[in-house]
Amino acid sequence: MKRIYADNAATTPLSPTALEAMLPYFREQFGNPSSFYREGQLAKSAMEEARIKIASCIGADYKQITFTSGGSEADNQAHITAAALGRSQGQMHIISTAFEHHAILHPLKALEKEGFRVTLLDVHENGIVDVAELEEAIGEDTCLVSVMFANNEIGTIQPIAEIGAVCRKHGVLFHTDAVQAVGHLEIDVERMCIDMLSASAHKFHGPKGSGFLYARKGIRLRPLIAGGAQEKSKRAGTENVAGIVGMAAALTESNARMCEQNKHIAACRDALIAGLETIEHCALNGDREQRLPSNVSFCFEGIEGESLLLLLDDKGICASSGSACTSGSLDPSHVLMAIGRVHDVAHGSLRLTLGEDITKEEVDYIVQAVKEVVERLRSFSPVWRDLCTGKAKHLL
Amino acid sequence: MKRIYADNAATTPLSPTALEAMLPYFREQFGNPSSFYREGQLAKSAMEEARIKIASCIGADYKQITFTSGGSEADNQAHITAAALGRSQGQMHIISTAFEHHAILHPLKALEKEGFRVTLLDVHENGIVDVAELEEAIGEDTCLVSVMFANNEIGTIQPIAEIGAVCRKHGVLFHTDAVQAVGHLEIDVERMCIDMLSASAHKFHGPKGSGFLYARKGIRLRPLIAGGAQEKSKRAGTENVAGIVGMAAALTESNARMCEQNKHIAACRDALIAGLETIEHCALNGDREQRLPSNVSFCFEGIEGESLLLLLDDKGICASSGSACTSGSLDPSHVLMAIGRVHDVAHGSLRLTLGEDITKEEVDYIVQAVKEVVERLRSFSPVWRDLCTGKAKHLL
Repeated sequence: MKRIYADNAATTPLSPTALEAMLPYFREQFGNPSSFYREGQLAKSAMEEARIKIASCIGADYKQITFTSGGSEADNQAHITAAALGRSQGQMHIISTAFEHHAILHPLKALEKEGFRVTLLDVHENGIVDVAELEEAIGEDTCLVSVMFANNEIGTIQPIAEIGAVCRKHGVLFHTDAVQAVGHLEIDVERMCIDMLSASAHKFHGPKGSGFLYARKGIRLRPLIAGGAQEKSKRAGTENVAGIVGMAAALTESNARMCEQNKHIAACRDALIAGLETIEHCALNGDREQRLPSNVSFCFEGIEGESLLLLLDDKGICASSGSACTSGSLDPSHVLMAIGRVHDVAHGSLRLTLGEDITKEEVDYIVQAVKEVVERLRSFSPVWRDLCTGKAKHLL
Repeated sequence: MKRIYADNAATTPLSPTALEAMLPYFREQFGNPSSFYREGQLAKSAMEEARIKIASCIGADYKQITFTSGGSEADNQAHITAAALGRSQGQMHIISTAFEHHAILHPLKALEKEGFRVTLLDVHENGIVDVAELEEAIGEDTCLVSVMFANNEIGTIQPIAEIGAVCRKHGVLFHTDAVQAVGHLEIDVERMCIDMLSASAHKFHGPKGSGFLYARKGIRLRPLIAGGAQEKSKRAGTENVAGIVGMAAALTESNARMCEQNKHIAACRDALIAGLETIEHCALNGDREQRLPSNVSFCFEGIEGESLLLLLDDKGICASSGSACTSGSLDPSHVLMAIGRVHDVAHGSLRLTLGEDITKEEVDYIVQAVKEVVERLRSFSPVWRDLCTGKAKHLL
């Protein structure tokens, strides 16, 4: 049976072009980019070419790109940088949102322990930050606004340019975790007034273990990993040359194809949403329009997400209930709670994130499979029985 | 002209076996190890197998291995972990050495700013820590001893088992930066009483961008990168599966071959040292016996290391003046200063670190090349002229 990979928000297959680009750096071109002799300088050149390519994909200058081991590292580094700046200026207030990735929320918790005040904005039922509310939250002591570009679970796209403009107006640093957006949406850090941006290669068909942090000119990144003078002393450790080269190749390719592919993916997404909505007592999570072309996120009443995934796996479908980063946790998704889903409903979630090779036939197959599985799970669910007999009230 | 790669302390060529092991995870097995479905679980299994292999290479249990993006990250994480433990127990004293890698020294500087007292032990002319001095430095408030296993510039091997025993006796945590030792020397964390150990894959023919941190049972690592629940919440971020698999394959191979290869490499090293010692006014850096089989480190009077490297590069030899991580810096090596080399002499340094494919003929070629280059550089060096005319005094 052919497998259908519908979990592209968790990770994407590595682009064959990217792998081709990487291979020489796993073979003959193995030099350390900090080395003096030609093998080292060749590696360095490859890395600097990658930096230029990556910068151009988001409208940045190559000097503004620092390579990291991934999105989480970039997020952590952005936050310690802003916190250090804030502390030095007596500004101890940070604004973020209730549905950020844990790579933002956990560093924020640590900063709270260090005396920072953190405001987590409501994201409302549609999963979108209200810019007026954000502006209202900005105070004299605000050192950072950190709002993700697109949510990893429910796919909602935030009004980044508007947020950027508001932050610029008030002279507050603006960071965006763009892990789900880079390579998938058009990004222009200048136009959008983004001061710092985090990205992860394996979300846009690059290799796992590579990412980058963009920081506007004038922001001196504080190293999270201190040591050697790599990355202009902003990130110590021998650079993952092959990973960096692969990331640049993948991003270049993704950006070039983005426009055309997004049309196809969005059409499949809409067909999938329409198909799943024929199932009774379910609901789409997050705004219908302002969402990633690839993202389909639903809650189904009376079922348990984990069982749903297991049975879909048996039917050849790779899907998730939410973030892969928190799998194994018994707590309901903080993202679904943030958009107002109650505990029981949030447990019955399904995220399908489509890749560019998805077909209409596969969409039909997924719809049919989900229908069958939901029906089967409901048939022996006591919660569902209570809902049907009127003992409990439907919420969806 | 065939190139001679003699900078294996900077980085090593990736093992073809390791690359073979990695490729499936760049192709069909691209799943996120945190994902529920079989593609994810396959990636997870591969990662856990790698963990078992790696643990067995250093006498550890697989539960004690946390994957990182490299040695620098592991060093930083070990230090923040020990510092957090120390702080919680009112122990604010750390002991390390004057010639540690910057991935140790820079975090220590940051900890000093946070109120920790740091003692950097002398490493004497032979580049070896005196265990009695170390024991004397331990106080009631010492929370960590961090001594590198083998020095990256001069290759001296520290008395790790003795240091471990002393630390255990006094109930002090012992961390070792074993980046130059793992895969090259026999390591048994139990026997050596090592509590935490850092390693980097690309130093033992694994890929760049992967490393690990060993931590003895009972030590709760504090995340340096906070966020998702990966690595049992000790290190957030999607794991570099291919890198981890490659690291395990490379380490398994290196460990299996170590004993035999070290005999050959050490014989070449000794021949190289003997050959270079025929050059007048030079000196071997670091102890002659207690050194890595691969390491040859010299200072030459009256020359400038950078020019030496450029001319050797022209002769097909890849070498370095010291650490690749600090290349570009005009300061003399802190390692050479720590063993008592004066500023001018430290500037005329050369590090040759041999790989297992080195031949006796290549050793002869290197000796001849260095002789010619040193002679040429001295011929137009004003410093050398002053030494020859008696205006300045020879120090070597």
